[in-house]
Order: sequence, then structure tokens, then C-alpha cells
Amino acid sequence: PSQTHRETALSRQGQLTKPAGSLGRLEALAVDLAALQNTDTPGADRISIAVFAADHGVCVEEVSAFPQAVTGQMIANFVAGGAAISVMARHLQARLEVINLGTATPPPTSDGVVDEAIAAGTANLARQAAMSTAQLEQALAAGDRAAQRAADQQAQLFIGGEMGIGNTTSASAVACALLAEPALALAGPGTGLDAEGVSHKVTVIERALARHGDNREPLVVLASLGGFEIAALAGALIGSAARGIPVLVDGFIVTVAALAAVRLRPDLRDWLLFAHHSREPGHTRLLEALNAEPVLNLSMRLGEGSGAAVAVPVIRSACALHNGMATFADAGVNNAE
Amino acid sequence: PSQTHRETALSRQGQLTKPAGSLGRLEALAVDLAALQNTDTPGADRISIAVFAADHGVCVEEVSAFPQAVTGQMIANFVAGGAAISVMARHLQARLEVINLGTATPPPTSDGVVDEAIAAGTANLARQAAMSTAQLEQALAAGDRAAQRAADQQAQLFIGGEMGIGNTTSASAVACALLAEPALALAGPGTGLDAEGVSHKVTVIERALARHGDNREPLVVLASLGGFEIAALAGALIGSAARGIPVLVDGFIVTVAALAAVRLRPDLRDWLLFAHHSREPGHTRLLEALNAEPVLNLSMRLGEGSGAAVAVPVIRSACALHNGMATFADAGVNNAE
Repeated sequence: PSQTHRETALSRQGQLTKPAGSLGRLEALAVDLAALQNTDTPGADRISIAVFAADHGVCVEEVSAFPQAVTGQMIANFVAGGAAISVMARHLQARLEVINLGTATPPPTSDGVVDEAIAAGTANLARQAAMSTAQLEQALAAGDRAAQRAADQQAQLFIGGEMGIGNTTSASAVACALLAEPALALAGPGTGLDAEGVSHKVTVIERALARHGDNREPLVVLASLGGFEIAALAGALIGSAARGIPVLVDGFIVTVAALAAVRLRPDLRDWLLFAHHSREPGHTRLLEALNAEPVLNLSMRLGEGSGAAVAVPVIRSACALHNGMATFADAGVNNAE
Repeated sequence: PSQTHRETALSRQGQLTKPAGSLGRLEALAVDLAALQNTDTPGADRISIAVFAADHGVCVEEVSAFPQAVTGQMIANFVAGGAAISVMARHLQARLEVINLGTATPPPTSDGVVDEAIAAGTANLARQAAMSTAQLEQALAAGDRAAQRAADQQAQLFIGGEMGIGNTTSASAVACALLAEPALALAGPGTGLDAEGVSHKVTVIERALARHGDNREPLVVLASLGGFEIAALAGALIGSAARGIPVLVDGFIVTVAALAAVRLRPDLRDWLLFAHHSREPGHTRLLEALNAEPVLNLSMRLGEGSGAAVAVPVIRSACALHNGMATFADAGVNNAE
């Protein structure tokens, strides 16, 4: 981030025709983006959204309200344009790519899907490591390639999304291992478990954590408890920041990937803007661990990057105001006495 | 509001390819708008923003951080395109009109300003009624005419904004009288008073409330303690709802106008969506009194309708998702087991 552009942006905010600070979070967003984009005129017109999809062996433990086939079906829905993130990408005129890291059932279509399949889903993390070190490297590299494509498109902002039936179980387990928290502190209903379902999910995660032990090294945790899409997200976030592209972080799952990535590369934190506070209860603890204050709180809990997409217009408004408002001097308006 | 369209919209939300309820507030916004707009495809493409400006006699009591001349100067800034609401109106491709209800100093320009001047500002509400009954009627009628113009433009959503140095003092006094609260409960820094300034403002409002007495009849309260722009907003909100146009309520001042208007016409409440939680501390009590949960909380405290404008894209996203997503049946995706 550029300290010079941060200071210029801060100074400009103080001269625009409004009481100092009266645009609240919008001022900070514009200033942060000016510093990250190394510019006097921050913008979020060119957005790259990458949705990473994969299946989870832990589904045999019955941790989700949806059948596992839905992961592949939703990949087809993403590219066909019917999913929430597809609608939002069109609405925002953002570039959307869908990356298949491996499903239990092949998606009904592979047209328009980026094929990065590693295996037909992870192993059951309740009983063994979710993936091998080699598979982890493949997933991280797939994420990095998505960041490279975003850079090739001159994206001003990168959004990572995810799809994978069972992935709140994996993400919660990763978060527990990284934060040394019990499963109860981070597990929630995901796509819609009832209280009994959540209680069972907690038991499954506790079993996984007992098997895993207390190793908190991010790559070890990701291989042991993660998912292909979660590891790919970590790689994509690191890759975006490395290429100078700020990241708008979505909800629970992406925040877990961000936590792992920040543990691996602490400098990454500066490049992350947090879009929304998910309704998934464990998100609060994750945001706290990352010292993050999201832009929105709309009780969303869908994933796919949808919460980040809904926050994009707030960032665009912040940029429009920063770039387009008159100063007191220009407009002939008196400042505060 | 149409109960039939509400039920159709609710049913559609349950069939879209996402876990039930996972779009959170966006689902409720789309459903509310479908009912209010009497349609299966709610939308917020055509937006009318009316900014009502006027001066306040109470400024002689030194209740603002800005000189009174700023009201007229900002009217010129609104029409010249340099103010926050001007930038947002362009950004949203919304129709913006600026209505002058009377300033102490004439604005530097009247080109493009709707002239509804009643007097060169209100009287000093700390010492006498802010306006006569005839002036109140003029202000309410000016608001109603703005609503008629919004209807003529086939607006799908109406936003009222305001500008008037000293108007948080007037608005706080109106709110105190309507809610039977002391000044301390509702007065805040406005455009940027320090603690001493707020304390002085509280004294001025208490003096006004002692003069006013305990009459809570909304029209009496508006004439005694209101401003021309606050009364015009009340008229505009009632006029919008009467013409079937939902209203997106901005921050502190507009919420006070909404409270007065709802006290006058309780049916109005159904037509109001609340855009954002202002940083002005008294807003919390007002939202509670109206049983309102705003969409955003961005620590904004600018007025002009700017907070409502920033919330528009969230409503547009809600509509895009409602209208554009595939159903489980259409997409061949399995629903929850």
C-alpha cells in the first residue's frame, strides 16, 4: 500500500463539501483503496470474481442439509447464470469464473468451467487428513492461477467465492485448529442444520480435531482439515495481494481461508477488505481474530462470494464520492467555523 | 401493499437455488417491494430524489458548527453537481431535484432550483413558534408537489433529503415533543459540535420545549418546533405513499419527519423502508419508535439523502436476485433433504 496516496486521499476527504468524517466508513474505504491501488482516483469498476468448488469426504458423516450432488449441480447453475453469484456478477458487470477443484459426481456440464480437478473430493477429515501435501500444493497453485487471470484482466478488486456441500464443517475445523478453539465456538447451521444437526456436526469436528492434534501451522492445518476450494482461496488471496490487487473478503468460508493465508503471510492482511458479517455464528470470532469490521450486515449466509458482491456497490459509491465531489474552495462553500 | 404479491414473492424466494433464508435482509427487501409496488418483479431503477433546503431562525442561538450562509451555498452546490447527493444521483442515474423553501441569504444561483420559498428561514424556535399554520400548510403542500412530480416520472422509489444549517436542533426538538423525551436523549453533535456545543444545544432545545409545552399533536409540533424542510419532507412522504410510491428513509432528520408523518397517518409506516443507521446518536431512539431496522450502518451523518442513496444498490441487488435467480426445478438442483 502507498502511504503517499493514503495521505493525499485523507487530505482530499477533509476538503470535500461535507462535515469532516460525515461519510463514515465510505471515507475509510476510499482512502484504503487509494493506498492499495496506488492512485488518487480509486475505483472498483473492473471486478474479478472466482468461485472455487469442490466436494468433501466428510459428507459421509451427514454434516449437511443438502445432498453432495448439489456441488456439481451448482457448478452448472453458476455457469448457466441462475445462481445468486451469477446474477450479481451480471448486475455488477463483473467477470465471473467458476473453478472446479474436484467433485464426487461430475457436474452436468463442464462448458465454461475452469477445470482444476484434483480428486473427486477430499478424504473424510474426521478419520484422516483431508488431502495430501501434493494435493494442497495443487489447490494453492490453482488459486494463484485465478489471481493471475484477475491480474491479466486488470482487476481493481478480487472476490473469491466458494461452493462445496459440507464445507462449513471443514472451514470450522480449520478455524478451530488455527485459533485453538473448541468446535462449539465455531460450528453453526451452515446451509440450514437444526440444533440436533449442529450438535452432531460439533461431534464430527471434535473427532477431527482430536485426530489432528495441536499443530497450528497453516499449511499443515489446511491439508489435515481443509477443502480443495478453501486451500485454493488461500492461494488466490495471497496471489492477488502479491499482484497488487486488493481483495474483498466474503463470509464465513472465505474468512477462514483468509485467516489461514494471513497466518502464512501476515502482510496479506493490509490487502483485505471485509464485505459482510455472515449470519453463520462463528464468523464473529473469525472477524475478531482478523481485526476486521465488515461493510455490511444483512444476515446473509449463502456463500458463493455473494456477500462480497452485494458490498461492491458500497465501495463503488465510496469511490464515486471521493473522486466526484467538489471541494469547499471549488464550490464556494464555507467550511466549519 | 398487495398481500397477493407478497405471498407470491415469498413463495418464489423459497424456490430459488439457495438455502432458505440465506439471502437474509435481501429477501425481505424484495418481498416488501413486490408487495408495495404491486408486482411480481420489484425494481428500483427509476428513483426520484428530492432535497428540501431551508434556513432556521434558531441559528442565532449558535447551535451549529457551520455558518448559516452554507444552506444557500449548498443549494448551489447541489445543482452544480458537487455535493455528495449530486454525485450519488449521477452514480445511480436517479432524478435529483433541489427545492428551496426559504434561506436567510439567497443562494448564489437559482438555476435548476425548484422555488418554493416560504420565508427567509423560520423564526427562532427557542423563543416563539418556528412557523405559522399557514406556513406549515405551504411546506406540507410543497412536499406533496414533489411527490406528485415523482409520480409523474413513474418513480419506483422516493428519497427525501434535506439541507439546513441548524436543522438537527429543530429535528431533535420535534422528536422530543413527539416522544416526550428530554433534549439530552435526542440532541447530538449534528455537523460536528464538540461536547460543550452539544451541551449548549441541549439547553436551547430545553428552552424551546418549555415554551412549547406538552402538546404532541404532530401538526402543532411541526409548526412550533419544525423547519420548512422538515415539514415539506413529512408532506412528501405522505404524498409518495398516497400515490403508491415506497419511500427509502434517510437518516436523523428525515426519520424525524417520518415520525411526525406516521403520527399523522399511521398507514404510512408500511410504505417506509429505512436506509441506514446514522451516527447521530438520537437516531437509535427514533428507529426504535418507528420499529425500523435500517439496511446499512456505515457511521454516516451527512444528510442530503446521502445515506438513502448509498442504500439504493442494496435494494437493486435484492431485486436483481429475486427476479434473476433460477429455481431448484429450473436449474435441476436438489433442494435440502
